[in-house]
Amino acid sequence: MRQERINRIKRVLREDHLDGIMITSLENVHYLSGFTGSDAALVMTETKGYFLTDSRYTTQAKEEVSGFELIEYKKKVEGLSDLMNGLGLKGIGFEAQHLTYRVHKELADKVSCGEFIPLNERVRNIRAVKDDEEIERIKGTIDIASKSLRENIWRIKPGIQEREIALELEFSMRRNGADGISFDTIVVSGARSALPHGKPSEKRINKGDFVVIDFGGRYRGYYSDETCTFFCGKPNHRQKEVYQIVKDAHDRTITSIRPGKKAKELDAVARGWIKDAGCVAYFGHMTGHGVGLAVHEDPVIGPESEDVVEEGMIFTVEPGIYIPGWGGVRIEDMVLVTASGCEVLTNLSKEIEVIE
Amino acid sequence: MRQERINRIKRVLREDHLDGIMITSLENVHYLSGFTGSDAALVMTETKGYFLTDSRYTTQAKEEVSGFELIEYKKKVEGLSDLMNGLGLKGIGFEAQHLTYRVHKELADKVSCGEFIPLNERVRNIRAVKDDEEIERIKGTIDIASKSLRENIWRIKPGIQEREIALELEFSMRRNGADGISFDTIVVSGARSALPHGKPSEKRINKGDFVVIDFGGRYRGYYSDETCTFFCGKPNHRQKEVYQIVKDAHDRTITSIRPGKKAKELDAVARGWIKDAGCVAYFGHMTGHGVGLAVHEDPVIGPESEDVVEEGMIFTVEPGIYIPGWGGVRIEDMVLVTASGCEVLTNLSKEIEVIE
Repeated sequence: MRQERINRIKRVLREDHLDGIMITSLENVHYLSGFTGSDAALVMTETKGYFLTDSRYTTQAKEEVSGFELIEYKKKVEGLSDLMNGLGLKGIGFEAQHLTYRVHKELADKVSCGEFIPLNERVRNIRAVKDDEEIERIKGTIDIASKSLRENIWRIKPGIQEREIALELEFSMRRNGADGISFDTIVVSGARSALPHGKPSEKRINKGDFVVIDFGGRYRGYYSDETCTFFCGKPNHRQKEVYQIVKDAHDRTITSIRPGKKAKELDAVARGWIKDAGCVAYFGHMTGHGVGLAVHEDPVIGPESEDVVEEGMIFTVEPGIYIPGWGGVRIEDMVLVTASGCEVLTNLSKEIEVIE
Repeated sequence: MRQERINRIKRVLREDHLDGIMITSLENVHYLSGFTGSDAALVMTETKGYFLTDSRYTTQAKEEVSGFELIEYKKKVEGLSDLMNGLGLKGIGFEAQHLTYRVHKELADKVSCGEFIPLNERVRNIRAVKDDEEIERIKGTIDIASKSLRENIWRIKPGIQEREIALELEFSMRRNGADGISFDTIVVSGARSALPHGKPSEKRINKGDFVVIDFGGRYRGYYSDETCTFFCGKPNHRQKEVYQIVKDAHDRTITSIRPGKKAKELDAVARGWIKDAGCVAYFGHMTGHGVGLAVHEDPVIGPESEDVVEEGMIFTVEPGIYIPGWGGVRIEDMVLVTASGCEVLTNLSKEIEVIE
């Protein structure tokens, strides 16, 4: 697995005629080396890989990382520039979407013989297609998250606070083995469900409320991300209608997925359906995003994405409608692209679930 | 409060002869505008402030942000460049330690009339001195965290797993009101206590183990960070000795704090003491760091820091000794610099606590 990942970097090296590639994003460091700590960098040449970290992580790196020469630095910029100067690297690719202006400038000043070449999509995309180990790990995280929501559905009833639901769901994920949560759990209800990224508050669930729960866990490095929208009480005609528009947008997008499709075409399926229903003004975000070692990674499923769907990609499909003052609905699943379509990985039902 | 914060930016504008300053780090957006969501930017000129976000956060921004003109963008780079071009800004300061190489390049290409000027310490440091509202909020977070550890000290005994202690401590912080945790809680014991940033494992606490617990919460935007080292059973001579070296390094540093002191002098107090005790090879990290809207912010208390201590700064003092294969000790408090010294904000005892 790891060798194939490293080969992807080597392909970029060769095709772009680079002497080396510097990796500074922790997700890519983890992906390529196996290191799970929170400060390190890699320098990779055609023949060798170097793993650089500071003394806090040396012991951990010795346990986790193999196939790289381990270098301990006191200051990252010095560690990197000494190494690259020592190797006499000339063309050095770097992650332009991760490296800050400041660190780039410091390195460019110190690495006298070399030139830094920004790598954008070339390296950004290396994690978009998942290998078997990654798929297994992501499924593991999803199982923990789904099980945890199922354990807590009984709590969603009139009188409970949004915040209590969020807490109990997070505790369940941790108890069920998650190493952490994907992001601050979103539980928003009633008019607050129109806040796509609202914080759970002390507001209590009332009859007549939509309850949007957007949540995920982290397990062995990999994230999950899923949204369920519940209804408390008996939905009226308009509420049922809005739910169904979102559900149909979601289902139609999923049935459109296959390798070779453009990501923006998938976005257009969801957005077009919501537009035809007269609600496009209430759907402001993108239709989906990749999930893996980061909660948001490639591919981007949005109207201006240049990404193309490939077998092995894992991403979310999450259309929503948010009507200020009235409420909102979002329905989100994670899918794995297969040879002929996709497999829905998240396993909670997306039929409207009515809580009495 | 907010006006004084904005005035700090305006001073940079004037002193550096800039037409505008672009703020893209979420912590500074929060600090200056009050916005607590996770995607937004500011553009500030001498006469006006602009707040830019996307549709997911418009409703929230209307509730939280005042004193700025609200602009909704579809794509951040376009939103920012259209605004800055429209205003005809020429010299535009930006956060060089936050903005990525890629986004800087895209903006520089699109903002035709303007030049982007990297602001390093000037803007990085604006949050280092805390105002009364911030001090109160940080104390609130610390109270939640301390109370939560106190509720769980009884659990630290032979047979319990590191991971169980971490989970229960996190649950307590969340139940006691924290909006989240500062970072993955560290609970490491026995030989694993030599991993400064180790992950809590299924290892059980044994008699004869140091147990290092490094933890913190997040509450109303502000973080806390504290480390306690417990001992399970009866420490032997060497264990008592190492604990005392770290404790003395910690105490001596704290009594050296006063406005005007250089941060590197404080670091030298801790490092010098550990060096004199023959253990400097086992203390690889810095002595401390600021804490506020980020867990790690200015000032930096390290050997190469150029920061100077000022009244109102809040930072950690956290020397440690980590002996591979043997174990480690870290003792960490957060302090508030006062007119004549400092106030220790974290309120758990740092005397060696022996758990039977």
